[in-house]
Amino acid sequence: MVSVESRWPSLGTHEKYLSSLRRTKASIHNTILPDFEMRNYTQTLDHFNFGPNSYDTFLQRYAINFKYWGGANTSSPIFVYIGDEGKLVIDKFTTDFLVTKAPHFKSLLVFIEHRYYGQSNPFGSMEEAYKNSSTLQYLSSEQALADCAQLITDLKKNLSAENSPVIAVGGSYGGMLAAWLRLKYPHITIGALASSAPILYFDDITAHNGYCSVVSRDFRESSESCYRTIKNSWHEIKKTATQYEGLTALSQMFNTCRPLTSVEELTDFLEQIYFVKAQYDTPFYNGVNFLCEAIDKDPHEIDPLRRIASGFKAINGISMCLKVWSVEEMNENDRLFGWRWQACTEMVMPIDCTGKEQMFEESPFNLTDYMSRCKTLFNVLPRPHWITTEYDGRNIKEVLKDFGSNIIFSNGLRDPYSSGGVLQNISSTIVAVTTTKGSHCLDIAESEVSDPDWLISQRNMEVQILDSWIAKYNSQNYKS
Amino acid sequence: MVSVESRWPSLGTHEKYLSSLRRTKASIHNTILPDFEMRNYTQTLDHFNFGPNSYDTFLQRYAINFKYWGGANTSSPIFVYIGDEGKLVIDKFTTDFLVTKAPHFKSLLVFIEHRYYGQSNPFGSMEEAYKNSSTLQYLSSEQALADCAQLITDLKKNLSAENSPVIAVGGSYGGMLAAWLRLKYPHITIGALASSAPILYFDDITAHNGYCSVVSRDFRESSESCYRTIKNSWHEIKKTATQYEGLTALSQMFNTCRPLTSVEELTDFLEQIYFVKAQYDTPFYNGVNFLCEAIDKDPHEIDPLRRIASGFKAINGISMCLKVWSVEEMNENDRLFGWRWQACTEMVMPIDCTGKEQMFEESPFNLTDYMSRCKTLFNVLPRPHWITTEYDGRNIKEVLKDFGSNIIFSNGLRDPYSSGGVLQNISSTIVAVTTTKGSHCLDIAESEVSDPDWLISQRNMEVQILDSWIAKYNSQNYKS
Repeated sequence: MVSVESRWPSLGTHEKYLSSLRRTKASIHNTILPDFEMRNYTQTLDHFNFGPNSYDTFLQRYAINFKYWGGANTSSPIFVYIGDEGKLVIDKFTTDFLVTKAPHFKSLLVFIEHRYYGQSNPFGSMEEAYKNSSTLQYLSSEQALADCAQLITDLKKNLSAENSPVIAVGGSYGGMLAAWLRLKYPHITIGALASSAPILYFDDITAHNGYCSVVSRDFRESSESCYRTIKNSWHEIKKTATQYEGLTALSQMFNTCRPLTSVEELTDFLEQIYFVKAQYDTPFYNGVNFLCEAIDKDPHEIDPLRRIASGFKAINGISMCLKVWSVEEMNENDRLFGWRWQACTEMVMPIDCTGKEQMFEESPFNLTDYMSRCKTLFNVLPRPHWITTEYDGRNIKEVLKDFGSNIIFSNGLRDPYSSGGVLQNISSTIVAVTTTKGSHCLDIAESEVSDPDWLISQRNMEVQILDSWIAKYNSQNYKS
Repeated sequence: MVSVESRWPSLGTHEKYLSSLRRTKASIHNTILPDFEMRNYTQTLDHFNFGPNSYDTFLQRYAINFKYWGGANTSSPIFVYIGDEGKLVIDKFTTDFLVTKAPHFKSLLVFIEHRYYGQSNPFGSMEEAYKNSSTLQYLSSEQALADCAQLITDLKKNLSAENSPVIAVGGSYGGMLAAWLRLKYPHITIGALASSAPILYFDDITAHNGYCSVVSRDFRESSESCYRTIKNSWHEIKKTATQYEGLTALSQMFNTCRPLTSVEELTDFLEQIYFVKAQYDTPFYNGVNFLCEAIDKDPHEIDPLRRIASGFKAINGISMCLKVWSVEEMNENDRLFGWRWQACTEMVMPIDCTGKEQMFEESPFNLTDYMSRCKTLFNVLPRPHWITTEYDGRNIKEVLKDFGSNIIFSNGLRDPYSSGGVLQNISSTIVAVTTTKGSHCLDIAESEVSDPDWLISQRNMEVQILDSWIAKYNSQNYKS
């Protein structure tokens, strides 16, 4: 049996890994880009109820950058980055697109931190905010969207910029929020760039195995032998684990920092690494190739388990031990990680690994297990159908064909989350921009001098579309 | 000083009067129309938070009528009447349009009662639900819209009617909800008929005196002399009240059921009656003319006060005493009336009587007074800018020109609330249908054999527009 953890390849898990990737890179560069001023906004705790606690407020952090702005009385836009399930990070690895394109747009930049993450904490300390379902209850996508609506409205008023066009930009969960903000609050933004937003990965809209299938395809495209090795490794790992001193043997083979206490600690870990490598397989990092090359290195080794172990030791650094989390550590991390709460309430993404064309162990999504785990973690039960009731998805093509405008859904097709994204144009202004070789949120993330042409083209196309929205808005609102 | 009550000419107050009018009529006819089956839906208490109480459910009442429905596997629509701030009433005086047009549309009829009204009570008893701000907190428009979204989704699923087109219909506050449901949940309904929905009567979008100006114009159009008499009466009433035994004299003059304890009891009452007469001035009732004829009756009487008193005695029935509410009674009514809670939280409509072209005492809207009254009544403070942040209004023409579709905003221009309505087409499918002589919610209310041509035309035009939406939807979804 695979433990439930390995079947939570939700955005959150990946973001955890990503944030460690980011941290590594960020330690080399600057953490906060220059010209950003950090501010606090007094935000309403509960926008939709009016009970005794609803009038509580908290300080929501946001960053603002005036450097490139044309000003309030011009046609210059305001670009709002919609923060996702993490501390607000302003570096060139996350939101580079907004900063590098700001001189072109003459845009004001506003980056909003999502409630309950980073410093935007409604209850004094993070420990207090994450204490139980009473304190966590106000962590929801609807409240987060209303936060943005209220903050943007007030900010525009304070800047006397009521007529300035606002564009929402976000990636991953933040991309969903950007798209939903445009749809639910069309008076707040004139358009949205939703990068790698899997808004269709709810209920049964997207095949549950979409994510794992794309990960597997990525590995297979990199190396058929690597794909086969991984596919065959699970059985070998399990077999070894059941043998006498099997866990000890596995611990030694993978050079884990402490002895494994269960085989799932290892299989979950490996699976997560495959997920992350695929999701963030950027042109200048090529994590899948890198790992596959390490796995494929010794052509004489035929045991898939030994190949995998060598590969992981190689990418981890031969002298470094492999840090595998225990179930208890995972649980504790999860309990203090807001995305887990969100996944346990409304953001139920039924991701699983099933079918022949994939390299993972067969494990169908099991809602009952998922719910019981949420009950244990937070004493809440998920509402698995709420997101599609609140935001749709099921009939998105039919509904948005004649309703709504100005959304770019951008996706890189090597990103496993692209399987739940909008990959085809819905109307002339609700459009899909995809790249075959792109990965998760690549278009809005860092740009490098070595960027391939297809990535530069994607970004240019996005700029062109954004330009057209702004021009149209301004032609209607700034008649000279 | 005019007491604050008289400056609450919100929908709620009028609905109170209307419901007594309705009751009178309903006692003659049937209260619930035939072929409606009353049902209960297990509704989520809090759609947007996930705290310990958010998982509570309550029974929401709705009515369903299958008689005219073409069925689930046909192109026949589902018409959903969105209940407003009152008990769900299914009679020919409120929602006749839906029933009389059902054979034409072959429509399923679903009438949803608004949470916290009628029997749709989240806390056992109405007394319990209205106890304090803890129990009342879940009474908000956002929760009500989410109720509709969830109920409709589940109902369609249970009927295997997922593809059936849904049209939302509502009047007054229910009309706002119908329009907002279409805008916020475009996947739930394909269109909305929003009758007499003053969605622009928030913040400073509409002139605060719009309501009183239209009431005054209605009276003036009926009779210049009546208008003048009312306009001059306030001063005379006040003057009399300050004289020795003045309140006693006024009590006798108006034949009040008990002695007046303040002059405001009388002035508030009179004002409310003028409001209601204008708002519900239907072609087959003509309340304004009726009252003005009574006021104008004695050409020899020159004292405006005596003319008013005679008029009221005449319309009230000479032998009947005039039931005037005390401030305490009003307060108690208000405290148990959900609309007051809504007006004290988010539905802040800044209606006042100011300016020369109106017949009421000058009294500007005073937000500070309004808020302090809410503090006293419910221990809450209104959020006067929230509705425009959540639903817009300010830039409705610019925003909805390229966003959204399929809303009819219908208004009768003799309805004082039409001053806060959408009176001009916004796009080819977000349209205004107005009648010069119409009153509040007249188009969706009772039809009579004596209906004037302009009213018949208005309804036919609405049917035609609804037909076109349904036909377009079906041509895209039921390809034969």
